[in-house]
Amino acid sequence: MAKEKKLVEAITAMEDDFAQWYTDVVKKAELIAYSSVKGCMIIKPAGYAIWENIQKSLDAKFKETGVENLYMPMFIPESLLEKEKDHVEGFAPEVAWVTYGGLNQLQERLCVRPTSETLFCDYYANEVQSYRDLPKVCNQWCSVVRWEKETRPFLRSREFLWQEGHTAHATAEEAKERTEQMLNLYADFLEKELAIPVIRGQKTEKEKFAGAEATYTIESLMHDGKALQSGTSHNFGDGFAKAFGIQYTDKENKLQYVHQTSWGMTTRVIGAIIMVHGDNSGLVLPPKIAPIQVAIIPIQQKKEGVLDKAYELKEVLSKNFKVKVDDTDKSPGWKFSEQEMRGIPVRVEIGPKDIEANKCVVVRRDNREKYEVSLDDLETKLGEILDTMQKEMFERAKAHRDAHTYEVKNYEEFKDTIANKPGFVKAMWCGDMACEDKIKEETTATSRCIPFKQERIADTCVCCGNPAKHMVYWGKAY
Amino acid sequence: MAKEKKLVEAITAMEDDFAQWYTDVVKKAELIAYSSVKGCMIIKPAGYAIWENIQKSLDAKFKETGVENLYMPMFIPESLLEKEKDHVEGFAPEVAWVTYGGLNQLQERLCVRPTSETLFCDYYANEVQSYRDLPKVCNQWCSVVRWEKETRPFLRSREFLWQEGHTAHATAEEAKERTEQMLNLYADFLEKELAIPVIRGQKTEKEKFAGAEATYTIESLMHDGKALQSGTSHNFGDGFAKAFGIQYTDKENKLQYVHQTSWGMTTRVIGAIIMVHGDNSGLVLPPKIAPIQVAIIPIQQKKEGVLDKAYELKEVLSKNFKVKVDDTDKSPGWKFSEQEMRGIPVRVEIGPKDIEANKCVVVRRDNREKYEVSLDDLETKLGEILDTMQKEMFERAKAHRDAHTYEVKNYEEFKDTIANKPGFVKAMWCGDMACEDKIKEETTATSRCIPFKQERIADTCVCCGNPAKHMVYWGKAY
Repeated sequence: MAKEKKLVEAITAMEDDFAQWYTDVVKKAELIAYSSVKGCMIIKPAGYAIWENIQKSLDAKFKETGVENLYMPMFIPESLLEKEKDHVEGFAPEVAWVTYGGLNQLQERLCVRPTSETLFCDYYANEVQSYRDLPKVCNQWCSVVRWEKETRPFLRSREFLWQEGHTAHATAEEAKERTEQMLNLYADFLEKELAIPVIRGQKTEKEKFAGAEATYTIESLMHDGKALQSGTSHNFGDGFAKAFGIQYTDKENKLQYVHQTSWGMTTRVIGAIIMVHGDNSGLVLPPKIAPIQVAIIPIQQKKEGVLDKAYELKEVLSKNFKVKVDDTDKSPGWKFSEQEMRGIPVRVEIGPKDIEANKCVVVRRDNREKYEVSLDDLETKLGEILDTMQKEMFERAKAHRDAHTYEVKNYEEFKDTIANKPGFVKAMWCGDMACEDKIKEETTATSRCIPFKQERIADTCVCCGNPAKHMVYWGKAY
Repeated sequence: MAKEKKLVEAITAMEDDFAQWYTDVVKKAELIAYSSVKGCMIIKPAGYAIWENIQKSLDAKFKETGVENLYMPMFIPESLLEKEKDHVEGFAPEVAWVTYGGLNQLQERLCVRPTSETLFCDYYANEVQSYRDLPKVCNQWCSVVRWEKETRPFLRSREFLWQEGHTAHATAEEAKERTEQMLNLYADFLEKELAIPVIRGQKTEKEKFAGAEATYTIESLMHDGKALQSGTSHNFGDGFAKAFGIQYTDKENKLQYVHQTSWGMTTRVIGAIIMVHGDNSGLVLPPKIAPIQVAIIPIQQKKEGVLDKAYELKEVLSKNFKVKVDDTDKSPGWKFSEQEMRGIPVRVEIGPKDIEANKCVVVRRDNREKYEVSLDDLETKLGEILDTMQKEMFERAKAHRDAHTYEVKNYEEFKDTIANKPGFVKAMWCGDMACEDKIKEETTATSRCIPFKQERIADTCVCCGNPAKHMVYWGKAY
């Protein structure tokens, strides 16, 4: 029972220490375990099952747009990594190097992929000859390594899981369209499946991906008012194509460079789910992505017929929902805490009296609303409850974000808001990197994105007072 | 057209040069591409789609037996790898070592996982305290690295994809049962889905996994008469548990060591599919695992209504089959070759005259049997054809294996058979490793397994003449 006690002990309240609350949740909801490999985490079954659902959903959406999966080697020879100048500068300082194979020192060291643009370019240079070979729209699901100094589960770790899509197109227009298409796909996925509202926009020159012409991003706001970059889509133009010599002969038999894109989403979004929806009882999973949607918890399960009824309900409900029966010998109260900690969207409580009355009690995880439901209506009612919960989780997250988004017109206001009001700050910017640098240095806020939906808050840059070019979302970020 | 020509050029005949035939098929069926990373391959979309189907099917079967997926770090600290003596001796000579993280030399070098027993043991040592925590039945899908000197696509490469299951149990019996259960799961998968007959048995001491108490294996026979180890399941007893201190308190509150297993299947089985079923026109995919089962090839596709009919058929058939229409501007003959090279189980030929007569021609890939089928019956008939093809592919492979399995009673016969008759050799063995070593040295044949189904061919060891203990399958192997 000592072990049981540990879980029901209250976790740190998020108001008291958000970082500690986060750590408590990832551990007590059994999403991760620390490993003896510094900076790398073990994604435990409850965490990995969320990732499997994310994969399944995203992968199907990718394939609808013509994406083909493949698998590239995990190693990149140093000379290959160095082919595109900006790219190597961006990544070389944070890669892990393999220098020995068995007992022999390698003639050329290999980095463990931090991302695979260079491998895909090398591949496309061989595969693409004619316009008939285009477009190439490939993706891989894999892990990548970046030698981070400070790490946090899901948010920043030396190894993480992701998908990376890499495409090659005949024209610049087509590449631009694909970059936008994938960003919108990510945005819809976060909003509709993860119930996380996002801002869609473009990264500034300072914040864009190493080697990209333009980086599009979706930015979400965590419960503590910090921003999280939640998915990016890059338009490379023909920069990589020129560095790697990826050319095709067009219909007029002329040699042309291809135009490329890449786009990725990582296990980071699990961090976003936790920090957008979680509460002081633990994780709250959006029904659409929850590995288990319904926990049936028998009350007085030793009484005749209770467990049988629970299994019977499970069988019926499993046609439409992902259901488990908690038939362990723990107390119902403990089981409730556990279901809450793990973020299972609803629980169904059923005991001898309920069975007699042909009903049960359904409890929503997010707002703890209780429903007495006739067993005859349970299937229909559960569908409604889960749909409503999914919708309201999004609305609640959006209301929270909107309530923590501030418009500011001058630098004093900007500094004050960043310092005292956690959230997004919308402010005008002249487009000069010097202002961006100054803001970051003086406030630790970074430009999150130049949103596609522009507004004219003021005529001058919030920092230097020169004429403004863009409205920008700023914020402290993970 | 120059590019088109390349594919229709005959590939090397398997009778002339089996190794070259294999290389031709993996390249021309577009399963793999070579990368600029020596010894590592790119698994192209057509190859990766086969792996995705294998994953999907195996993963569902695993989960039915209670397996949970998780993800472990790809790095193993040297000190952790060294904890189990036999294990480190087996793997250390062939691992890749990371020695730098960014610009800094690591204090302890990390190997890129060749397999993850040590990581799972480290994890279970933390996770398991009480009998209530058992069993642990976990699996991960990932890539592993072994620094092989000679490599061949799918069969042996420095990086390959696989799944590795790792379990911990309260009792030795339970561990043994799980080892057997997973071997049987693999065997059924190969026989029923990949149409590859297998021998189930146990590896000798010499051939077992580094650190295992017993290794079970399924062995299949390739078309050239060489054996391929196609899946293994290891019983570790409590050896790793003692090395890593994985203990639990039982119901009587006594400390006990857990008993463990591990089991894996790799992208190697794609090599087996190629070498068991392929022919001189290319790949032949078993219908159950084929990413595309039906290729609809329009004849005179520029004539009005032909393409429309092809798309219409695709829509109808897609409810039950994986279908594509080849509507490229290549000639029908070229499309036939391509469908054959890629191993698509059946093609449906449909032209203006067929449409007029409300029929089409269906051609089976494996034996090229043609069927004239009324469009009204097409759905039913295709189901029958694919089922029959799946069944007959297994029977053909089994007949081939049986015809290339030889029983021998003395060493002269053994040497002669190994030298002149490619295939499995069944012969008695005394159980002494010296005989096994001698046989390997003198004939290059290795013991494939001690089959669970024992036969008494003779009373004495085929090598030394001492009393025989086991009947063993021997053979040259990939």
